[in-house]
Amino acid sequence: MSEFTIAQAARFQGQQVTLRGWLYNLRESGKLLFPQFRDGTGIMQAVVSKADVSSEVWERATTLTQESSVIAHGTVRADKRAPGGYELVLNDLTVVQRVPTDQPYPISPKEHGVDFLMSQRHLWMRSAKQSALLRLRHEVIAAIRDFFDSNGFILTDAPILTPAACEGTTTLFELDYFDLGPAYLTQSGQLYIEATAAALGKVYCFGPTFRAEKSKTRRHLTEFWMVEPELSFATLDDLMKLGEDLVTHIVARVLERRRPELETLERDTSKLENVRPPFHRLSYDDALKLLHQKGSQLPWGEDLSGADETFISQQFDKPVIVHRYPAKAKAFYMEPDPERPELALCMDMLAPDGYGEIIGGSQRIDSYDLLLKRLRENNLPEDAFQWYLDLRRYGSVPHGGFGLGVERTVAWIAGISHIRETIPFPRMIYRIYP
Amino acid sequence: MSEFTIAQAARFQGQQVTLRGWLYNLRESGKLLFPQFRDGTGIMQAVVSKADVSSEVWERATTLTQESSVIAHGTVRADKRAPGGYELVLNDLTVVQRVPTDQPYPISPKEHGVDFLMSQRHLWMRSAKQSALLRLRHEVIAAIRDFFDSNGFILTDAPILTPAACEGTTTLFELDYFDLGPAYLTQSGQLYIEATAAALGKVYCFGPTFRAEKSKTRRHLTEFWMVEPELSFATLDDLMKLGEDLVTHIVARVLERRRPELETLERDTSKLENVRPPFHRLSYDDALKLLHQKGSQLPWGEDLSGADETFISQQFDKPVIVHRYPAKAKAFYMEPDPERPELALCMDMLAPDGYGEIIGGSQRIDSYDLLLKRLRENNLPEDAFQWYLDLRRYGSVPHGGFGLGVERTVAWIAGISHIRETIPFPRMIYRIYP
Repeated sequence: MSEFTIAQAARFQGQQVTLRGWLYNLRESGKLLFPQFRDGTGIMQAVVSKADVSSEVWERATTLTQESSVIAHGTVRADKRAPGGYELVLNDLTVVQRVPTDQPYPISPKEHGVDFLMSQRHLWMRSAKQSALLRLRHEVIAAIRDFFDSNGFILTDAPILTPAACEGTTTLFELDYFDLGPAYLTQSGQLYIEATAAALGKVYCFGPTFRAEKSKTRRHLTEFWMVEPELSFATLDDLMKLGEDLVTHIVARVLERRRPELETLERDTSKLENVRPPFHRLSYDDALKLLHQKGSQLPWGEDLSGADETFISQQFDKPVIVHRYPAKAKAFYMEPDPERPELALCMDMLAPDGYGEIIGGSQRIDSYDLLLKRLRENNLPEDAFQWYLDLRRYGSVPHGGFGLGVERTVAWIAGISHIRETIPFPRMIYRIYP
Repeated sequence: MSEFTIAQAARFQGQQVTLRGWLYNLRESGKLLFPQFRDGTGIMQAVVSKADVSSEVWERATTLTQESSVIAHGTVRADKRAPGGYELVLNDLTVVQRVPTDQPYPISPKEHGVDFLMSQRHLWMRSAKQSALLRLRHEVIAAIRDFFDSNGFILTDAPILTPAACEGTTTLFELDYFDLGPAYLTQSGQLYIEATAAALGKVYCFGPTFRAEKSKTRRHLTEFWMVEPELSFATLDDLMKLGEDLVTHIVARVLERRRPELETLERDTSKLENVRPPFHRLSYDDALKLLHQKGSQLPWGEDLSGADETFISQQFDKPVIVHRYPAKAKAFYMEPDPERPELALCMDMLAPDGYGEIIGGSQRIDSYDLLLKRLRENNLPEDAFQWYLDLRRYGSVPHGGFGLGVERTVAWIAGISHIRETIPFPRMIYRIYP
């Protein structure tokens, strides 16, 4: 039998168990105490009856302070009134470390401001909602990896330290790399995994990416995690299908394994149950019509703004894929649509309910001559891109991929408004501590 | 039926299939051609008979150049003489992009120097050995994640950008973080996941870590990946057991799923079959005796050097755990051995055959007073460590963890001598391109 955890309490019904954890809350009612313990997997209520325990244990239990660490012994009993359906009938208690009353745990049940809570992030994450968010994040990442691993993709980590600035240096973190000059923190592993895709067929990278952007919106972090699949012999249609399958898999997995967390977060799960293929597909032209109908004046050719994406995603009850944007609004490496070369064979997936972009991807240019032309048009340093051009010199194939942002995906699935709570230690323009 | 891949050729025996890939090699024998194709999952020999194909297909096949991309149609046939046991009887061939003869693929079958190959890393990874190494790396990482995920650990990513320098700034990459002053690239997520372990019980982080070390050894990269589990309510014995179970799981999984890759790498798998618990456990004192017997003069109290580790690991036929090093040779946060306070409750796991350290870990100090004392003794900035001290103020528990280096583990399992080939784009003191 495996060790007892609160999340698995049902399996231990009627048994004597040992709970190692911390005091989350303490309620008293005459000769009964109701301490709530947390062990990292969940929160469980215990019952201590003065009549049934030694005076030492009663004394220890009555004087327990918030977040004191304990080892509690007791019997698991089903009780419909107890949160989670089970409670611990306590018969012994050891205090590992008692938080002193003159220096109490700084986060009390009262309301605190976000700035204060963020400065206490190392402790705040112990709260029911924050720990549920971190378990949800874990599940989303595990679902992503299992999806790619079970579909024949090979994980090929892209480098974090990169020599060239692909899309301008204004939003890059720069550092000195020994005697080799400046290096930059990666914004995307895409260019690198185009190389590994040519070597290994279907690949993905999954790591931290960085933007030194002075954005203070609820959708921006300076350090965030992104998964990026890249496929040889693939077209835009393949990518849209893959993105749809991936997001469907993630949501189904969370619904299957993280119901208690979704409940803690008070998420309306009926909206998540609805996330099944096919997703809506909307060309840029049609997206623009939708925006114009609502009074937008956005001229053809401009990229959609965050507000435009929010508006579009509010029109649908599940994710929507917007495809074939004007080429001039998009990155230099995107393959043009053969039928309308002013369009790029690209796509963004927008989460519903106004959450906006969670996926951005494209088919990549596979012609050497066209790629060289685009590099020159964009005044990019040809030298730095020789290896990237090589991928079109030697065995070029139609290929493409996309990036899915972990934090935005978790925020949407959790139904929370700011992505800073979806990562253990958020990094923002004004925060790098703790 | 899923799509055809070379790795799954056995499932398609007797069937007409489409192979999308690249020419790896071409052998001619009169009116027969034997092109070898690769598709990222493996290499497969095809047979083209002049009598059985059109003159156009014959012409295309005879003029194929190395790394030209192709779509080949044919029937899968078992043949014991063929590498992998199956060959493709080709009946149609489309060339997607032909590498021109006047600008051939730069990596020919002849011997090249490592410097040249590293400068062509984006292409070199297509070779049989290099792609086998990357698939092996993928399997090692997937095995690690599955191990922790199926044992109740929660993934909690530690930040890459950190404000404080834990162990001196000489080996840290530094950058400017907006108006908040200098920030550093992480060397380890440990301190951060001590916080998440107190919130979630059993956790791990798994990301890139950085050392701006001017080391040019075969065991050093400036950017490498590390998995770090951290457990609340855990002792040194628990950690040694966990490390043993983890490494056993990784090796078993690679043996189960990556036999063809180990064969390509000419790895003696009998040595890997031997990696089963219990691993040898050796105290620092006993390790020192072993070294002294062989003529070493290392005084008690000094850390083992790389050469010492190599020597020790050569004495054993499977991994060996060295535990309880002198505290003064180790990091400030390690819990002292209650029976001999001059020792730290720490452990390193050394891979056999001279591969040296793959795991380093310890139980952490859980006493607030002792930790504060150690911070002061080490002249560390108390302000920056307030949050870390908080973990001992509020619900401190015995806890610990370790770090396992991915690249060193892959190098050992693959049986190769330099870790630079175990990562897609290695970063070393003298290399950041491509």
